[in-house]
Amino acid sequence: MTKLATIRLTDANAAEGTRAVKLENDRLVDLGYADLGAYLAAGSPAAPADAATYPVEGADFAPVVPNPSKVVCVGLNYKSHIEEMGRDLPEYPVLFAKFADTLAGANDDIVKPAETEQFDWECELTIVVGKTVRHASAEEAADAIAGFTAANDYSVRDWQFRTREWLQGKMWDSSTPVGPYVVTPDELPGGVRPELDTKLTVDGVVKQTANTSDLLFDPVHLVEYVSTIVTLRPGDLILTGTNGGVGHARKPQEFLWGGETVEITIDGIGTLTNAIVKDA
Amino acid sequence: MTKLATIRLTDANAAEGTRAVKLENDRLVDLGYADLGAYLAAGSPAAPADAATYPVEGADFAPVVPNPSKVVCVGLNYKSHIEEMGRDLPEYPVLFAKFADTLAGANDDIVKPAETEQFDWECELTIVVGKTVRHASAEEAADAIAGFTAANDYSVRDWQFRTREWLQGKMWDSSTPVGPYVVTPDELPGGVRPELDTKLTVDGVVKQTANTSDLLFDPVHLVEYVSTIVTLRPGDLILTGTNGGVGHARKPQEFLWGGETVEITIDGIGTLTNAIVKDA
Repeated sequence: MTKLATIRLTDANAAEGTRAVKLENDRLVDLGYADLGAYLAAGSPAAPADAATYPVEGADFAPVVPNPSKVVCVGLNYKSHIEEMGRDLPEYPVLFAKFADTLAGANDDIVKPAETEQFDWECELTIVVGKTVRHASAEEAADAIAGFTAANDYSVRDWQFRTREWLQGKMWDSSTPVGPYVVTPDELPGGVRPELDTKLTVDGVVKQTANTSDLLFDPVHLVEYVSTIVTLRPGDLILTGTNGGVGHARKPQEFLWGGETVEITIDGIGTLTNAIVKDA
Repeated sequence: MTKLATIRLTDANAAEGTRAVKLENDRLVDLGYADLGAYLAAGSPAAPADAATYPVEGADFAPVVPNPSKVVCVGLNYKSHIEEMGRDLPEYPVLFAKFADTLAGANDDIVKPAETEQFDWECELTIVVGKTVRHASAEEAADAIAGFTAANDYSVRDWQFRTREWLQGKMWDSSTPVGPYVVTPDELPGGVRPELDTKLTVDGVVKQTANTSDLLFDPVHLVEYVSTIVTLRPGDLILTGTNGGVGHARKPQEFLWGGETVEITIDGIGTLTNAIVKDA
C-alpha cells in the first residue's frame, strides 16, 4: 500500500521546511526529498534504510506538491449532474488554470477574502502526474498517473463571473487545499479510472456526494487531452471537476462567511478539513 | 540605460545553460545569475567587476524569464479596438493563464501544431514583475514593475473556442515568445505606463499597429488588480492584451500554416522574429 504526502516540519523537529513522506502503519517515513514533486521527478525511489520517521498524529500536511509546474482544472465533468441540469454532454473538457501560490495544505485554515460575498466550495478528485509526457497515448497516459488526491476548489464566484474567463475567481492565494495523501492507482478500486465515493460537508451537513466513476472525461482521457497541448511533468496536478451541490447553484444560494468547517472525504484517499476564517 | 535579457549559452561558450545578462554597448554582461527570474529575486544587484561578457551578435535569447511562478494574460484591452468593435468598455480586465512550458525565446522557431487549422498571432506589451507584492497600492504596484518586454501570444483559435474557457487555445508548448529585452521603466516614454508604438508583421505585411498608451487597464492597474487576488513574485509576467488586426477577426480570416515569418517590434524594447514551422 502506498500513501504519499508532503509534510511541514516545525521547530519541534530536527529540521525545518517540507519533506516527502510515505505512510507506514502509524509513521510517516521520510523519502529523502523536500516534497513529492522532487520525489516523483527523481523516479520515486525506495526510502533509505535509515530514513527518519514522523508521527501521523499531528502531522502538518503541505499541499501534496507545493510547487507544480502547472495546475490544470476541469469544469463541469460529472455526467449525472450535467444531465440533471438539462445540458448536453460536452464534446471537450473545459480547462482552466491555477498557480502554485493558489494551493494550501489539507487541513490549513482557508481565508474568505474580504473582497467577496460569494465564497463557495467544490469537491474534486485530483490527478497527480508522475512522468513527463507530451502527446501521450492512452497507455502512456495511464502510466503517467502517479496517483490521486483530493482538492477543494474554493471559488470566489462574484469574481469568477465578473468577466467571461473564470481564472480571477479561481487563483486566490492559498485557497485550494490538496491532500492529505497521494494514493497510487493500484490501491484504488478502478485503478487509473478510480471508483470512489466523494462527500463534502459544511459544519457536518452533506452538500455534495458523488462517485468518481461518473466522470465524463476520466483521468486517463484528461492526461491524454492535456498532454496534446502542453508537456505534463512529475508533480503536475489535474483537478477533475466537481459535481452538483455547490453553493452557487443552490436555491437559495449558500456561501461561506467565516466560522464554518468544511470537510471533503474521498474514500481511500482521506479527508480535507478546513476552518474558514474571516480576512484579517 | 538598462536592457536585461536571459540568453542561452552553447557549446561554443565556456558553460552551458542560460545566463542573465545586461546590454552594455555591443556586449551582454553576465549578471551572475542563471536567468532574470533569479536575478530579480536577488534584488537586481550590480554585475560583478570581472563579469564575463558575450557578443550581442548571434545571441540566443531564452524567454526573458524561463520559469516564472505565474503568467497572467489580459484579454481585449485596447480602447480604440473595443470601441471599433462597438462594445462597451469593460469594467474589469479579463484574465487567463499560461504556464512556463508555454514560453519561447524571442527568435525561436514556433511550431504550428498539427492539431489546428486556426493558428493566429497577438502582439502584446508584457509586464515583468520585480518584487513580491500582494494587495499592492498604486504606488506599490508601480514600484513592483521591473520593466517591460514584448510577447507574441500565438493562439490556437479552434481549441480556444472549443469550450467556454480560452486556456486550451493559449497554453501550447513553446508557443509564446517573450523578449528580447526587459527594459526598465525609466528608459521608456511614459515610464510605468509606457507610450510605445507596437507593430506586428507577417512576411513583412503589417497586420497590427497600436500605441501602448491606448491600454484601457494600464500596467500599474493590472499589477494592483492581479495582486488583490494572488501574490505576484519577481519574474512573474503579465501579458497586457492585444489590439485589432488578429487573423481570427479579419475578413476573410487569415491564419498561419508554416513557412511564414512573423515579427513584432515594440519601440524601445526590440523585435521578436519567429519562423513558423510545420509540426514534424
